[in-house]
Amino acid sequence: MNFVDIIEKKKTGEALTSEEIHYFVKGVVSGEIPDYQASAFLMAVIFKGMDRRETFDLTMEMMHSGDVIDLSSIDGIKVDKHSTGGVGDKTTLVLGPLAAACGCKLAKMSGRGLGFTGGTIDKLESIPGVSTSLSTEQFVSQVNRIGLAVAGQTGDLVPADKKLYALRDVTGTVNSIPLIASSIMSKKLAAGSDVIVLDVKYGKGAFMKDPAGAEELASLMIDIGTQAGRKMRAIISSMEEPLGFAAGNLVEVREAIETLNGKGPDDLRELCVTAGSLMLSESGIAPDESKAREILTDALNNGSALNKLAEMIKAQGGEPECIFDPERLPSAPNTMHIYADSDGYIESCDALAIGCAARDTGAGRIVKGEDVDPVSGVIIHKKSGDKVCIGDVLADILYSRPLGDQIPQNVRNAFKIVPEKTERIPLIYKCI
Amino acid sequence: MNFVDIIEKKKTGEALTSEEIHYFVKGVVSGEIPDYQASAFLMAVIFKGMDRRETFDLTMEMMHSGDVIDLSSIDGIKVDKHSTGGVGDKTTLVLGPLAAACGCKLAKMSGRGLGFTGGTIDKLESIPGVSTSLSTEQFVSQVNRIGLAVAGQTGDLVPADKKLYALRDVTGTVNSIPLIASSIMSKKLAAGSDVIVLDVKYGKGAFMKDPAGAEELASLMIDIGTQAGRKMRAIISSMEEPLGFAAGNLVEVREAIETLNGKGPDDLRELCVTAGSLMLSESGIAPDESKAREILTDALNNGSALNKLAEMIKAQGGEPECIFDPERLPSAPNTMHIYADSDGYIESCDALAIGCAARDTGAGRIVKGEDVDPVSGVIIHKKSGDKVCIGDVLADILYSRPLGDQIPQNVRNAFKIVPEKTERIPLIYKCI
Repeated sequence: MNFVDIIEKKKTGEALTSEEIHYFVKGVVSGEIPDYQASAFLMAVIFKGMDRRETFDLTMEMMHSGDVIDLSSIDGIKVDKHSTGGVGDKTTLVLGPLAAACGCKLAKMSGRGLGFTGGTIDKLESIPGVSTSLSTEQFVSQVNRIGLAVAGQTGDLVPADKKLYALRDVTGTVNSIPLIASSIMSKKLAAGSDVIVLDVKYGKGAFMKDPAGAEELASLMIDIGTQAGRKMRAIISSMEEPLGFAAGNLVEVREAIETLNGKGPDDLRELCVTAGSLMLSESGIAPDESKAREILTDALNNGSALNKLAEMIKAQGGEPECIFDPERLPSAPNTMHIYADSDGYIESCDALAIGCAARDTGAGRIVKGEDVDPVSGVIIHKKSGDKVCIGDVLADILYSRPLGDQIPQNVRNAFKIVPEKTERIPLIYKCI
Repeated sequence: MNFVDIIEKKKTGEALTSEEIHYFVKGVVSGEIPDYQASAFLMAVIFKGMDRRETFDLTMEMMHSGDVIDLSSIDGIKVDKHSTGGVGDKTTLVLGPLAAACGCKLAKMSGRGLGFTGGTIDKLESIPGVSTSLSTEQFVSQVNRIGLAVAGQTGDLVPADKKLYALRDVTGTVNSIPLIASSIMSKKLAAGSDVIVLDVKYGKGAFMKDPAGAEELASLMIDIGTQAGRKMRAIISSMEEPLGFAAGNLVEVREAIETLNGKGPDDLRELCVTAGSLMLSESGIAPDESKAREILTDALNNGSALNKLAEMIKAQGGEPECIFDPERLPSAPNTMHIYADSDGYIESCDALAIGCAARDTGAGRIVKGEDVDPVSGVIIHKKSGDKVCIGDVLADILYSRPLGDQIPQNVRNAFKIVPEKTERIPLIYKCI
């Protein structure tokens, strides 16, 4: 087989055979296919796509390019979730303990962020003492004991994706639905859970810009997972505005704690209860989604979800007391308020702009391996549909290093104030 | 400037600025832009193209990436030709001496072939003693003395094209009209002639498959050359069938000698006279193309064109006697005749199939740096429109190493014999 012929074939829009896809993935991992051929091929995929069979083949080849986690020693139905990410997305911090408190087993592997704020791992490690470096044995044993563990990747999962993603990132070949789907699903399948709930976001702060694109991606991932024998569900949700109010690391941990305490922002709570209801019904813990919502709401209101987070924090080296008394968590030394300069209604609060501002305070990283600032970030106080008067606080910027003029200006400009009454942008577009 | 942004821009179909094209060419030559980014960019160009302004900018940046030959010390109008190549294309061997015999100055740089047969350089060097390694001084002085020199590339011409072409060749990014045009024209402009005549071929044995594509490429190259201050003309000609009858190295030299001797195949003679008439009229040597054709025909018939070839061979180290007595040239030890197995008419003789067969006898190379066999090749005896009877010889295969079964079969299959009378495929589609 000659890889130039495979590039030419994809260039004319033909579907590749399973053998050709095997040859591609194997060649990328072994280095036999040089980067310059792989990147030309990826660009051809950007223009010509891959059909469902090709995308499934690619996913399975990538999954089998490295370790595949065996969770069979954990009793019960193992549940996983994946969010395509966005600004203020602390869903795992809420949904993990919530679903575990209701009987799901969550053996969750997460990443560090390269973007607006840290990833789930960075957010958890911003809690003093918490470690996410667990061996596979520790990881499995913790899930068996308390139903929940959140760890950085253990083992060598999907080396093909590591190589391909690094290449896509620097060659303008990220935005392809089959490439995104196979990248996500190869990792989810290798991580070994039985039920997988996806949260595919669209909007300014998300990769997909509209609900139709997000649904196409979600539907493709559901197909792949189902064909691989997993139970799959997906939520299509908006990322036009930040999720909840907080964007950062510890500020998001605090908001997660509030939510697990039966309070917290409506949109974050609703998203977690919806995702949880898909998990509980697919696992057979609840007979249907409506009963599942009751169980989940109880767990938020009776403290069992919050207790589960405290259990996990304790198991992973942190002090559970700070979960019940978040004042014990470190906080930023400085706050700047951003005020409304006109009367009216918020038409939108741009998730991308808030995300970039949070990153610029130090809450996110631009280059791999950089430390993130645990305490800095942005907390918004207004969202679409809210009435504002001159002098109202729109947002707070929390910071621990010099702020400059640009970040406050960007946060102010993230809010569009209009004279006419506006509606809140709905969070959940649909579940599939 | 960030090259990923430039890739993204081209991916969406936007035209690049002159500065962005400068950055690209500079980065490719310096190695600052890694191959994997360059190849992703080239694939985006395959799908999204480049407009005329971008293609001109790219050509000029490439031309200035290395040495530019100064031919100002040669008196008179310097004329160059370029053929997009094909099977049996020995035009330079005929047209060079012919035009020089009529007063043109041809300082011609040629390449070694990587394809069906050797390139012009290989064909010339198949004549015992001939060298094409001339210093720039030798090259210029020979043209001043006898009007003609054919050399391998002197100096470091267009290093950007060397890098880009090598990359395109292994990443499926050859077939883009702007990339082909800028690759050819950057080298032609750097080679320094005043008048450039292009022979852009279409058909089975050529890169462009139809006349419309060939004309688009020719018109783009004419624009680029004109904008760079050169006099430009182009012939669009067919490469459905081999040019002339011989495909190889010395077999083509012999055919060129016959043609310079006032005989030779009609199509080769017609193509050379047509190209020569464009050269003579653009140089002002003849008042118009019709007068130019008379001058050229005289030179073929009165021996002056053949004398010019002998002069050049002598100047470049060969024995001029073998030009007047081609029996002195080496020949292949073995010949196999390929016979017609039905009565009828030749509908076509597939140039690509004959070219591949010639290459497989050893007349061409598959890998850079390989030696070519000077004596092997294929000579066809029938072309489209010819009547054939069972037992007529369709072609001869000349060979000096074991032949196998496949080559004879492929040569036979190159000829399509049909019962109804057929027409000869016309050679010249148009001149522009």
